Amino acid sequence: MDYKKYITEVKDYPKEGISFKDITTLMEDGKAYKAAIDEMADFAKNKEVDVIVGPEARGFVVGCPISYALEVGFVPVRKAGKLPREVLRVDYGLEYGKDSLNIHVDSIKKGQKVLITDDLLATGGTIEATIKIVEELGGIVVGIAFMIELTYLDGRNKLGKYDVFTLMSY
Amino acid sequence: MDYKKYITEVKDYPKEGISFKDITTLMEDGKAYKAAIDEMADFAKNKEVDVIVGPEARGFVVGCPISYALEVGFVPVRKAGKLPREVLRVDYGLEYGKDSLNIHVDSIKKGQKVLITDDLLATGGTIEATIKIVEELGGIVVGIAFMIELTYLDGRNKLGKYDVFTLMSY
Repeated sequence: MDYKKYITEVKDYPKEGISFKDITTLMEDGKAYKAAIDEMADFAKNKEVDVIVGPEARGFVVGCPISYALEVGFVPVRKAGKLPREVLRVDYGLEYGKDSLNIHVDSIKKGQKVLITDDLLATGGTIEATIKIVEELGGIVVGIAFMIELTYLDGRNKLGKYDVFTLMSY
Repeated sequence: MDYKKYITEVKDYPKEGISFKDITTLMEDGKAYKAAIDEMADFAKNKEVDVIVGPEARGFVVGCPISYALEVGFVPVRKAGKLPREVLRVDYGLEYGKDSLNIHVDSIKKGQKVLITDDLLATGGTIEATIKIVEELGGIVVGIAFMIELTYLDGRNKLGKYDVFTLMSY
Protein backbone atom coordinates (compact mmCIF):
# COMPACT_ATOMS: atom_id res chain seq x y z
CA MET A 1 0.00 0.00 0.00
CA ASP A 2 1.24 3.52 -0.77
CA TYR A 3 0.96 4.86 2.77
CA LYS A 4 2.51 8.22 1.91
CA LYS A 5 -0.60 9.33 0.09
CA TYR A 6 -2.45 9.22 3.44
CA ILE A 7 0.17 11.38 5.23
CA THR A 8 -0.35 15.15 5.22
CA GLU A 9 2.80 17.25 5.03
CA VAL A 10 2.37 20.45 7.03
CA LYS A 11 4.86 23.15 6.08
CA ASP A 12 6.61 25.20 8.80
CA TYR A 13 5.18 23.21 11.74
CA PRO A 14 6.01 23.25 14.60
CA LYS A 15 8.49 25.90 13.41
CA GLU A 16 9.77 27.46 10.20
CA GLY A 17 11.66 25.14 7.93
CA ILE A 18 10.14 21.93 9.37
CA SER A 19 7.77 19.93 7.17
CA PHE A 20 5.66 18.04 9.72
CA LYS A 21 4.41 14.57 8.78
CA ASP A 22 0.81 14.38 10.00
CA ILE A 23 -0.32 10.76 10.46
CA THR A 24 -3.86 11.68 11.54
CA THR A 25 -5.10 11.54 7.94
CA LEU A 26 -3.77 7.98 7.68
CA MET A 27 -5.47 7.03 10.96
CA GLU A 28 -8.78 8.49 9.75
CA ASP A 29 -8.82 5.87 6.99
CA GLY A 30 -9.73 2.59 8.67
CA LYS A 31 -8.28 0.37 5.94
CA ALA A 32 -4.99 2.24 5.63
CA TYR A 33 -4.52 2.42 9.41
CA LYS A 34 -5.19 -1.31 9.83
CA ALA A 35 -2.88 -2.23 6.92
CA ALA A 36 -0.09 -0.12 8.45
CA ILE A 37 -0.52 -1.76 11.85
CA ASP A 38 -0.59 -5.22 10.26
CA GLU A 39 2.74 -4.61 8.52
CA MET A 40 4.29 -3.41 11.77
CA ALA A 41 2.86 -6.39 13.65
CA ASP A 42 4.26 -8.72 10.96
CA PHE A 43 7.75 -7.36 11.65
CA ALA A 44 7.36 -8.39 15.30
CA LYS A 45 5.56 -11.68 14.75
CA ASN A 46 8.55 -14.05 15.01
CA LYS A 47 10.38 -12.19 17.75
CA GLU A 48 8.50 -13.83 20.65
CA VAL A 49 7.65 -10.39 22.02
CA ASP A 50 6.53 -10.45 25.68
CA VAL A 51 5.49 -6.82 25.89
CA ILE A 52 5.13 -3.73 23.70
CA VAL A 53 6.30 -0.32 24.94
CA GLY A 54 5.47 3.07 23.45
CA PRO A 55 5.98 6.69 24.55
CA GLU A 56 2.95 8.96 24.84
CA ALA A 57 0.93 9.96 23.00
CA ARG A 58 1.69 8.99 19.41
CA GLY A 59 3.51 5.85 20.52
CA PHE A 60 0.11 4.72 21.84
CA VAL A 61 -1.70 5.12 18.52
CA VAL A 62 0.83 2.76 16.96
CA GLY A 63 1.58 0.41 19.87
CA CYS A 64 -1.93 -0.20 21.24
CA PRO A 65 -3.37 -1.65 18.01
CA ILE A 66 -0.18 -3.71 17.48
CA SER A 67 -0.76 -5.01 21.01
CA TYR A 68 -4.30 -6.01 20.01
CA ALA A 69 -3.14 -7.62 16.75
CA LEU A 70 -0.44 -9.71 18.47
CA GLU A 71 -2.39 -10.26 21.72
CA VAL A 72 0.66 -9.02 23.62
CA GLY A 73 0.42 -6.54 26.51
CA PHE A 74 1.19 -2.84 26.14
CA VAL A 75 3.17 -0.72 28.62
CA PRO A 76 2.87 3.07 28.36
CA VAL A 77 5.88 5.37 28.80
CA ARG A 78 4.60 8.75 29.93
CA LYS A 79 5.59 12.29 30.81
CA ALA A 80 6.09 13.18 34.49
CA GLY A 81 3.04 13.05 36.76
CA LYS A 82 0.87 10.86 34.54
CA LEU A 83 1.46 7.38 35.97
CA PRO A 84 -0.15 6.67 39.36
CA ARG A 85 2.29 4.19 40.89
CA GLU A 86 6.06 3.97 41.51
CA VAL A 87 7.99 4.96 38.39
CA LEU A 88 11.48 4.86 36.98
CA ARG A 89 12.35 8.16 35.28
CA VAL A 90 14.89 9.13 32.63
CA ASP A 91 15.64 12.70 31.51
CA TYR A 92 16.54 13.42 27.93
CA GLY A 93 17.06 16.26 25.47
CA LEU A 94 14.69 16.51 22.55
CA GLU A 95 14.56 18.58 19.39
CA TYR A 96 12.72 21.48 20.99
CA GLY A 97 13.87 21.36 24.67
CA LYS A 98 14.24 18.94 27.57
CA ASP A 99 11.83 16.40 29.00
CA SER A 100 11.53 13.24 31.07
CA LEU A 101 9.98 9.85 30.48
CA ASN A 102 8.49 7.62 33.15
CA ILE A 103 7.53 3.95 33.36
CA HIS A 104 5.94 1.88 36.12
CA VAL A 105 8.80 -0.01 37.81
CA ASP A 106 6.85 -3.28 37.86
CA SER A 107 5.71 -3.14 34.22
CA ILE A 108 8.62 -5.04 32.69
CA LYS A 109 10.23 -8.11 34.20
CA LYS A 110 13.94 -8.87 33.83
CA GLY A 111 14.61 -10.78 30.62
CA GLN A 112 11.31 -9.97 28.91
CA LYS A 113 11.49 -9.36 25.17
CA VAL A 114 10.28 -5.88 24.31
CA LEU A 115 9.05 -4.33 21.08
CA ILE A 116 9.24 -0.52 21.14
CA THR A 117 6.82 1.44 18.95
CA ASP A 118 6.46 5.07 17.93
CA ASP A 119 5.01 7.03 15.04
CA LEU A 120 8.17 8.76 13.84
CA LEU A 121 11.96 8.38 13.95
CA ALA A 122 13.47 11.87 13.75
CA THR A 123 16.69 12.57 15.68
CA GLY A 124 15.99 9.50 17.83
CA GLY A 125 16.11 11.26 21.21
CA THR A 126 12.77 10.00 22.52
CA ILE A 127 13.47 6.45 21.41
CA GLU A 128 16.96 6.44 22.93
CA ALA A 129 15.36 7.44 26.25
CA THR A 130 12.69 4.76 25.84
CA ILE A 131 15.34 2.10 25.17
CA LYS A 132 17.28 3.25 28.23
CA ILE A 133 14.27 3.02 30.52
CA VAL A 134 13.34 -0.44 29.19
CA GLU A 135 16.90 -1.75 29.60
CA GLU A 136 17.23 -0.31 33.10
CA LEU A 137 14.22 -2.45 34.06
CA GLY A 138 15.97 -5.50 32.57
CA GLY A 139 13.96 -5.70 29.33
CA ILE A 140 15.61 -6.90 26.11
CA VAL A 141 14.75 -4.73 23.11
CA VAL A 142 14.13 -7.20 20.27
CA GLY A 143 12.79 -4.65 17.79
CA ILE A 144 11.75 -1.05 17.24
CA ALA A 145 8.93 -0.21 14.83
CA PHE A 146 8.08 3.23 13.43
CA MET A 147 5.52 4.35 10.91
CA ILE A 148 7.82 7.03 9.49
CA GLU A 149 11.57 7.63 9.32
CA LEU A 150 13.10 11.02 8.52
CA THR A 151 16.33 9.65 7.06
CA TYR A 152 17.97 13.10 6.71
CA LEU A 153 18.00 13.45 10.54
CA ASP A 154 19.96 10.20 10.79
CA GLY A 155 18.24 8.98 13.97
CA ARG A 156 18.90 5.39 12.86
CA ASN A 157 22.58 6.02 13.55
CA LYS A 158 21.77 6.10 17.29
CA LEU A 159 19.94 2.77 17.02
CA GLY A 160 22.75 0.89 15.24
CA LYS A 161 22.65 -2.28 17.30
CA TYR A 162 18.84 -2.69 17.23
CA ASP A 163 16.50 -4.25 14.68
CA VAL A 164 14.59 -1.23 13.32
CA PHE A 165 11.55 -1.34 11.04
CA THR A 166 10.00 1.67 9.33
CA LEU A 167 6.96 1.66 7.10
CA MET A 168 7.91 4.74 5.08
CA SER A 169 10.93 7.03 4.72
CA TYR A 170 11.37 10.69 3.85
CA MET B 1 -13.98 -12.10 32.05
CA ASP B 2 -13.51 -10.53 35.48
CA TYR B 3 -11.75 -7.39 34.28
CA LYS B 4 -11.63 -5.80 37.71
CA LYS B 5 -8.94 -8.19 38.88
CA TYR B 6 -6.61 -6.60 36.30
CA ILE B 7 -7.29 -3.05 37.51
CA THR B 8 -5.05 -1.61 40.22
CA GLU B 9 -6.72 0.68 42.73
CA VAL B 10 -4.30 3.41 43.83
CA LYS B 11 -5.34 5.09 47.05
CA ASP B 12 -5.12 8.89 47.42
CA TYR B 13 -4.14 9.54 43.78
CA PRO B 14 -4.10 12.14 42.28
CA LYS B 15 -5.19 13.60 45.63
CA GLU B 16 -6.30 12.45 49.07
CA GLY B 17 -9.60 10.63 49.17
CA ILE B 18 -9.52 9.59 45.50
CA SER B 19 -9.05 5.90 44.70
CA PHE B 20 -7.54 5.97 41.22
CA LYS B 21 -8.41 3.11 38.86
CA ASP B 22 -5.19 2.23 37.07
CA ILE B 23 -5.86 0.43 33.76
CA THR B 24 -2.18 -0.06 32.90
CA THR B 25 -2.12 -3.44 34.66
CA LEU B 26 -5.02 -4.57 32.46
CA MET B 27 -3.22 -3.33 29.33
CA GLU B 28 -0.06 -5.21 30.33
CA ASP B 29 -2.00 -8.47 30.02
CA GLY B 30 -2.37 -9.09 26.28
CA LYS B 31 -5.36 -11.44 26.62
CA ALA B 32 -7.30 -9.25 29.07
CA TYR B 33 -6.63 -6.09 27.03
CA LYS B 34 -7.77 -7.76 23.79
CA ALA B 35 -10.89 -9.24 25.44
CA ALA B 36 -11.82 -5.80 26.82
CA ILE B 37 -11.38 -4.16 23.41
CA ASP B 38 -13.40 -6.94 21.74
CA GLU B 39 -16.35 -6.37 24.09
CA MET B 40 -16.25 -2.64 23.44
CA ALA B 41 -16.01 -3.23 19.68
CA ASP B 42 -19.00 -5.61 19.89
CA PHE B 43 -21.08 -2.82 21.39
CA ALA B 44 -20.35 -0.70 18.31
CA LYS B 45 -20.55 -3.44 15.68
CA ASN B 46 -24.13 -2.85 14.51
CA LYS B 47 -24.08 0.92 14.72
CA GLU B 48 -22.57 1.49 11.24
CA VAL B 49 -19.84 3.63 12.81
CA ASP B 50 -18.01 5.84 10.27
CA VAL B 51 -15.34 7.10 12.62
CA ILE B 52 -14.09 6.65 16.19
CA VAL B 53 -13.10 9.65 18.30
CA GLY B 54 -11.14 9.62 21.55
CA PRO B 55 -9.55 12.30 23.76
CA GLU B 56 -5.84 12.08 24.53
CA ALA B 57 -4.12 10.15 25.88
CA ARG B 58 -6.13 7.37 27.52
CA GLY B 59 -8.91 7.70 24.93
CA PHE B 60 -6.25 6.56 22.43
CA VAL B 61 -5.40 3.34 24.28
CA VAL B 62 -9.05 2.35 24.07
CA GLY B 63 -10.08 3.87 20.74
CA CYS B 64 -7.09 2.93 18.56
CA PRO B 65 -7.39 -0.85 19.05
CA ILE B 66 -11.20 -0.62 18.61
CA SER B 67 -10.45 1.21 15.35
CA TYR B 68 -8.22 -1.70 14.32
CA ALA B 69 -10.79 -4.32 15.35
CA LEU B 70 -13.63 -2.64 13.42
CA GLU B 71 -11.43 -1.38 10.55
CA VAL B 72 -12.93 2.07 11.11
CA GLY B 73 -10.79 5.23 11.18
CA PHE B 74 -9.73 6.98 14.39
CA VAL B 75 -9.76 10.74 14.98
CA PRO B 76 -7.73 12.09 17.93
CA VAL B 77 -9.04 14.87 20.16
CA ARG B 78 -6.04 16.63 21.71
CA LYS B 79 -4.93 19.32 24.10
CA ALA B 80 -4.00 22.74 22.67
CA GLY B 81 -0.93 22.93 20.43
CA LYS B 82 -0.74 19.23 19.57
CA LEU B 83 -2.55 19.05 16.23
CA PRO B 84 -0.67 20.52 13.25
CA ARG B 85 -3.55 21.76 11.07
CA GLU B 86 -6.66 23.95 11.46
CA VAL B 87 -8.58 22.97 14.59
CA LEU B 88 -11.92 23.53 16.26
CA ARG B 89 -11.46 24.13 19.99
CA VAL B 90 -13.80 23.79 22.98
CA ASP B 91 -13.00 24.89 26.52
CA TYR B 92 -14.31 22.93 29.48
CA GLY B 93 -14.00 22.62 33.22
CA LEU B 94 -12.60 19.39 34.61
CA GLU B 95 -12.30 17.89 38.04
CA TYR B 96 -8.95 19.51 38.78
CA GLY B 97 -9.06 22.77 36.76
CA LYS B 98 -9.79 24.04 33.26
CA ASP B 99 -8.65 22.81 29.89
CA SER B 100 -9.39 22.83 26.17
CA LEU B 101 -9.90 20.12 23.57
CA ASN B 102 -9.04 20.42 19.90
CA ILE B 103 -9.93 18.49 16.75
CA HIS B 104 -8.91 18.90 13.11
CA VAL B 105 -11.80 20.71 11.41
CA ASP B 106 -11.74 18.36 8.39
CA SER B 107 -11.62 15.13 10.42
CA ILE B 108 -15.38 14.53 10.66
CA LYS B 109 -17.83 15.10 7.81
CA LYS B 110 -21.40 16.27 8.40
CA GLY B 111 -23.71 13.32 9.09
CA GLN B 112 -20.97 10.78 9.89
CA LYS B 113 -21.78 8.32 12.64
CA VAL B 114 -19.30 8.63 15.50
CA LEU B 115 -18.32 6.28 18.31
CA ILE B 116 -16.63 8.11 21.21
CA THR B 117 -14.21 6.15 23.40
CA ASP B 118 -12.40 6.82 26.66
CA ASP B 119 -10.98 4.81 29.52
CA LEU B 120 -13.10 6.19 32.34
CA LEU B 121 -16.44 7.92 32.95
CA ALA B 122 -16.05 10.05 36.10
CA THR B 123 -17.91 13.39 36.26
CA GLY B 124 -18.29 13.32 32.47
CA GLY B 125 -16.66 16.69 31.79
CA THR B 126 -14.14 15.52 29.21
CA ILE B 127 -16.73 13.45 27.37
CA GLU B 128 -19.28 16.28 27.32
CA ALA B 129 -16.63 18.46 25.67
CA THR B 130 -15.78 15.67 23.22
CA ILE B 131 -19.46 15.26 22.29
CA LYS B 132 -19.75 19.01 21.79
CA ILE B 133 -16.75 19.19 19.48
CA VAL B 134 -18.00 16.19 17.43
CA GLU B 135 -21.51 17.64 17.10
CA GLU B 136 -20.20 21.09 16.16
CA LEU B 137 -18.47 19.42 13.19
CA GLY B 138 -21.78 17.79 12.22
CA GLY B 139 -21.02 14.29 13.52
CA ILE B 140 -23.80 12.11 14.98
CA VAL B 141 -22.79 10.39 18.23
CA VAL B 142 -24.18 6.85 17.92
CA GLY B 143 -22.46 5.47 21.00
CA ILE B 144 -19.98 6.13 23.79
CA ALA B 145 -17.82 3.32 25.17
CA PHE B 146 -15.80 3.38 28.39
CA MET B 147 -13.74 0.74 30.12
CA ILE B 148 -14.74 1.97 33.58
CA GLU B 149 -17.63 3.91 35.09
CA LEU B 150 -17.48 5.55 38.53
CA THR B 151 -21.22 5.40 39.18
CA TYR B 152 -21.02 7.47 42.41
CA LEU B 153 -19.91 10.52 40.37
CA ASP B 154 -23.05 10.22 38.25
CA GLY B 155 -21.39 11.26 34.99
CA ARG B 156 -23.97 9.16 33.10
CA ASN B 157 -26.58 11.72 34.09
CA LYS B 158 -24.91 14.18 31.69
CA LEU B 159 -25.06 11.62 28.87
CA GLY B 160 -28.75 10.79 29.21
CA LYS B 161 -29.71 10.89 25.56
CA TYR B 162 -26.72 8.83 24.35
CA ASP B 163 -26.14 5.08 24.12
CA VAL B 164 -23.45 4.47 26.74
CA PHE B 165 -21.52 1.23 27.27
CA THR B 166 -19.18 0.52 30.18
CA LEU B 167 -17.19 -2.64 30.75
CA MET B 168 -17.05 -2.34 34.54
CA SER B 169 -18.55 -0.15 37.26
CA TYR B 170 -17.36 1.02 40.66
